[in-house]
Amino acid sequence: MQIFGESHGASVGLVIDGCPAGLPLSQEDFMIDIERRKGGIQKGTTPRKEDDLPVFKSGIFNGKTTGAPIAIFFENNNTKSQDYEKHRAVPRPGHADFTAHHKYGGHEDFRGGGHFSGRLTVCLVAAGVIAKKLLSQHQIEVQANIESIAGEPDIEAGLQKAIAAKDSVGGIVACRATGLPIGLGEHFFDSVESLISHAVFAIPAVKGIEFGAGFAAASMFGTEHNDAIMNVTGKTKTNHAGGVVGGITNGNDLIFRIAIKPTSSTPKEQSSLNWETNEVEVFSIKGRHDLCIALRVPVVLEAVTAMVLTDLMLLDHKMKRVY
Amino acid sequence: MQIFGESHGASVGLVIDGCPAGLPLSQEDFMIDIERRKGGIQKGTTPRKEDDLPVFKSGIFNGKTTGAPIAIFFENNNTKSQDYEKHRAVPRPGHADFTAHHKYGGHEDFRGGGHFSGRLTVCLVAAGVIAKKLLSQHQIEVQANIESIAGEPDIEAGLQKAIAAKDSVGGIVACRATGLPIGLGEHFFDSVESLISHAVFAIPAVKGIEFGAGFAAASMFGTEHNDAIMNVTGKTKTNHAGGVVGGITNGNDLIFRIAIKPTSSTPKEQSSLNWETNEVEVFSIKGRHDLCIALRVPVVLEAVTAMVLTDLMLLDHKMKRVY
Amino acid sequence: MQIFGESHGASVGLVIDGCPAGLPLSQEDFMIDIERRKGGIQKGTTPRKEDDLPVFKSGIFNGKTTGAPIAIFFENNNTKSQDYEKHRAVPRPGHADFTAHHKYGGHEDFRGGGHFSGRLTVCLVAAGVIAKKLLSQHQIEVQANIESIAGEPDIEAGLQKAIAAKDSVGGIVACRATGLPIGLGEHFFDSVESLISHAVFAIPAVKGIEFGAGFAAASMFGTEHNDAIMNVTGKTKTNHAGGVVGGITNGNDLIFRIAIKPTSSTPKEQSSLNWETNEVEVFSIKGRHDLCIALRVPVVLEAVTAMVLTDLMLLDHKMKRVY
Amino acid sequence: MQIFGESHGASVGLVIDGCPAGLPLSQEDFMIDIERRKGGIQKGTTPRKEDDLPVFKSGIFNGKTTGAPIAIFFENNNTKSQDYEKHRAVPRPGHADFTAHHKYGGHEDFRGGGHFSGRLTVCLVAAGVIAKKLLSQHQIEVQANIESIAGEPDIEAGLQKAIAAKDSVGGIVACRATGLPIGLGEHFFDSVESLISHAVFAIPAVKGIEFGAGFAAASMFGTEHNDAIMNVTGKTKTNHAGGVVGGITNGNDLIFRIAIKPTSSTPKEQSSLNWETNEVEVFSIKGRHDLCIALRVPVVLEAVTAMVLTDLMLLDHKMKRVY
Repeated sequence: MQIFGESHGASVGLVIDGCPAGLPLSQEDFMIDIERRKGGIQKGTTPRKEDDLPVFKSGIFNGKTTGAPIAIFFENNNTKSQDYEKHRAVPRPGHADFTAHHKYGGHEDFRGGGHFSGRLTVCLVAAGVIAKKLLSQHQIEVQANIESIAGEPDIEAGLQKAIAAKDSVGGIVACRATGLPIGLGEHFFDSVESLISHAVFAIPAVKGIEFGAGFAAASMFGTEHNDAIMNVTGKTKTNHAGGVVGGITNGNDLIFRIAIKPTSSTPKEQSSLNWETNEVEVFSIKGRHDLCIALRVPVVLEAVTAMVLTDLMLLDHKMKRVY
Repeated sequence: MQIFGESHGASVGLVIDGCPAGLPLSQEDFMIDIERRKGGIQKGTTPRKEDDLPVFKSGIFNGKTTGAPIAIFFENNNTKSQDYEKHRAVPRPGHADFTAHHKYGGHEDFRGGGHFSGRLTVCLVAAGVIAKKLLSQHQIEVQANIESIAGEPDIEAGLQKAIAAKDSVGGIVACRATGLPIGLGEHFFDSVESLISHAVFAIPAVKGIEFGAGFAAASMFGTEHNDAIMNVTGKTKTNHAGGVVGGITNGNDLIFRIAIKPTSSTPKEQSSLNWETNEVEVFSIKGRHDLCIALRVPVVLEAVTAMVLTDLMLLDHKMKRVY
Repeated sequence: MQIFGESHGASVGLVIDGCPAGLPLSQEDFMIDIERRKGGIQKGTTPRKEDDLPVFKSGIFNGKTTGAPIAIFFENNNTKSQDYEKHRAVPRPGHADFTAHHKYGGHEDFRGGGHFSGRLTVCLVAAGVIAKKLLSQHQIEVQANIESIAGEPDIEAGLQKAIAAKDSVGGIVACRATGLPIGLGEHFFDSVESLISHAVFAIPAVKGIEFGAGFAAASMFGTEHNDAIMNVTGKTKTNHAGGVVGGITNGNDLIFRIAIKPTSSTPKEQSSLNWETNEVEVFSIKGRHDLCIALRVPVVLEAVTAMVLTDLMLLDHKMKRVY
Repeated sequence: MQIFGESHGASVGLVIDGCPAGLPLSQEDFMIDIERRKGGIQKGTTPRKEDDLPVFKSGIFNGKTTGAPIAIFFENNNTKSQDYEKHRAVPRPGHADFTAHHKYGGHEDFRGGGHFSGRLTVCLVAAGVIAKKLLSQHQIEVQANIESIAGEPDIEAGLQKAIAAKDSVGGIVACRATGLPIGLGEHFFDSVESLISHAVFAIPAVKGIEFGAGFAAASMFGTEHNDAIMNVTGKTKTNHAGGVVGGITNGNDLIFRIAIKPTSSTPKEQSSLNWETNEVEVFSIKGRHDLCIALRVPVVLEAVTAMVLTDLMLLDHKMKRVY
């Protein structure tokens, strides 16, 4: 899977190689998840709206996947680049402005975060739609939900905190995959946790991940944490392991949680270096931004999780060809 | 890098391809880290001892690396396999016994956890020694420390909890890398966090990872979390990002923490399925085991971190050839 | 590098990840090579013409590469799909019709060869333009030429043979890369010959490859074949090795030749199985086809060769960043 | 698969990851192929003899593969390093002496070709034994034979030519795989020819490869070269394609030929640069060498071919688990 594009460039898109042939696929399949990701609806998300229609460029014929690479495009219709250009010399704290500038010698497309923009997550969502459709044929479901915003399990309360403080906030998102067979994942470097975490940290703003009991496990006793195996399906009495033991799925639900930092762009004043004047200056970020990017993360988290699980199912020969 | 071996097989070992030529390397280089990893010294670690002498099989000539693959072996001298064989049909909770049995159709080497044993971490430590030596030539240092045991910042207090409860306990380990240049890591799927977490979850017993402020970031405001850039070196006022922004190192220390679950083998009684009788039975695990495996993790964590950073330095052309 | 698209689909294209930032790139850079590949000009090539304008979709900003993935599109404007649909059940000999039908369970896009069409080579050519531009900054040049057509060193005579026989013909194409440093390529599985041949056999219709003296070497004596090293630059008296020894470039020109089979689509009658009637039937292929596809291969061969050499230069740290 | 070791180091060996569990494997399985590769038996091969007993270090338990990485060692018992050291400054033409010296900055193990020695091919042979055993369970057989030596189809006549000339000679080796299903191989960069040739050029001394009609195809007409499909099994009237169309197996035998250059070490005098004196000097190579290395290649060629086909079978889900 390869994603490409920039926030304020012509388009963003993705190419998937290795998708089994014969999977029915239409624009409609994508709309629910694309809507879930979209800003402009919920309090706390950006008013920027893109039609976000996936345009199929290859790999689909007569409404089904062909087995050849699938290219999907999303046009960028709704860009206001002028917002960004005047602040070029002042890298926004928490954004990739400074690191990208150094890494790419000043040649990066800096408009709206360029290739580092959250805009690219629409490509992840699109890949996730395909992965989830493949998995659903094997009764595997992936679902992610917001667990808390700004430390408040009540989402609305968390957002009110942000609005009251005129500042951005973060949140916790939980993910669960059901229906997985025993045996996915490989010893050591391709453990399920290795592959999931690798993909999850591709989502901008993720700062942590924990499986099952996670960080709480560090304070538990062994007898407390160990999940007793109850029968031949591998069903355990508890699920502190989060469905993975020795890096391999054990037949229980895969469970993990991730931490999302507050949106880097906040309405409040901040300070940063101006690399032209070489002085630290105070500024505030204008433009369209989410108060809480975590609100848009669940569908993206489902997507990358489904991508990894699809790969593991294909690798493990447990995913029948579609046709 | 490829590791191989089993807890009670002939040996464990590793092969590294791609190490630059000309790096001086002797057995002595390995001894400090191998001692740090070894059990049998500290209260709370297993009395099993292996000499753990690294035997160089290839890739080293006249005391220096040649540029060809480096193979290193550790013989297993001190195995008591009979401990394990009689409990074959009762998969130990928290261990890979059940998942490996399913995945490999009963052909797995089950003695002492076989390939899934913590014994294999000596291979990671050996690779880490080489990686750290390469990094040190560029003034990059990696250091990991125990932050808490059983929820107690005082390690001794944490271990006493385990001893008093006659149960195993977990812990938190923190890691810091200093001296990194700006610009390591790639957009999206090869972000620094993706690569580090991928490697870290190869270490048995890791249940979570967080960078910088990590899970706490989810409860912070944007202005609170954002790290103000102070000068052209990228130095920030705070380091909530943990040294990575947009997946790319920003010139500050790389900081992350991991959660280690309590040792799965606990002296206390547990219950699990007997897959021959198909009944849940109560048993206790005999044999040599750590009360707190977290105590042995820091040097392993340094190792996998150094391996990733070395790869990124080589990829980024910032690591000069040794010769 | 990922290519995608089908002969008669909406478009074909490519995504390149890992191209250094700061390389100036315009549509004009692509036109010479795209013209060289295009049919409809030379006797012996298909009258199908596409404008073949590369459309930059990402990774280029202010006329230079940004370091982010580069997506390039070519629209398919000039397709006559009806030519193909009626012959669906009769797989054309020498084409992928039969193998793709089996591999993809009948879901493949069969129009004009679908994803297996020579149309896709425009993507390779585009990637080659970028690779050659990067290499030229290091004084490395790659050039391929037709050596013979239908066994005739005189190209015109070879084509006359095809026209006279009303049949398609093949040819030999030679490639030479000059200016390579000593030391590209890795031991065993990543030898220069391994990497070059891997890429070259991605070009449709290639049936063989030989380096330096190639197949003739099998009939030579050792003293005859060995290239005596003349000075510290590695310059050899002869170049039977074709510039590679032990899988590693030796400072002499890289030289290899490839064999191109006759175009599978020939104006003459042929027979094949009709998988609906299950009988072998005689038919002739209509539509636009090259009498000699070898004529269009040199620029494609240069492209894949340049891609491999660019990768090796980047891997070997000998390619300076562009900026 | 990773191979390691040097001609005159402690040992050579290999690590295989991904081999299915449950395959019976004993030292005896390896002996026939190891004997076939061994020198010292046939006229024209080196008198150097190694016991070449494969020592299993991991991944095998109770006589079967476990699914964990398989490490196999071959000790080097019979080395005479002093033969090589005095000629250090005069790189032997046709050997990797010069290229390795430059690539590894003089740190390479130069004794007997070091890591670039044909000695390493025993590792390929060992991997091939396992691959062939896996394939044979699916009725796939791989067989390679010498087709000519020094241009003579009669092997004995070819060797006499070498002996008469007191020089080394090359040869042609042909390979055939039977029983392959239709559909192995992927579009473009993972075509069967790409993967096979990639692996084949890892064998030292290979200078060319051609599939089916190969270079002769370049002089054929389309109707002459095209293989008419005769029935639903894909069986074709002729097999000029060599069993691969569009990069994908077509149900016919996979057929290809490779060219082996004359052994670089020849008893005759040669000249080369002395990099200490900076003068070209005349010398002759002492030590144990094959007059015709091609004699030992067939079993190595079978090995790398079987490795690629096993990977393709696993990728295509056509290889059932062993257990």
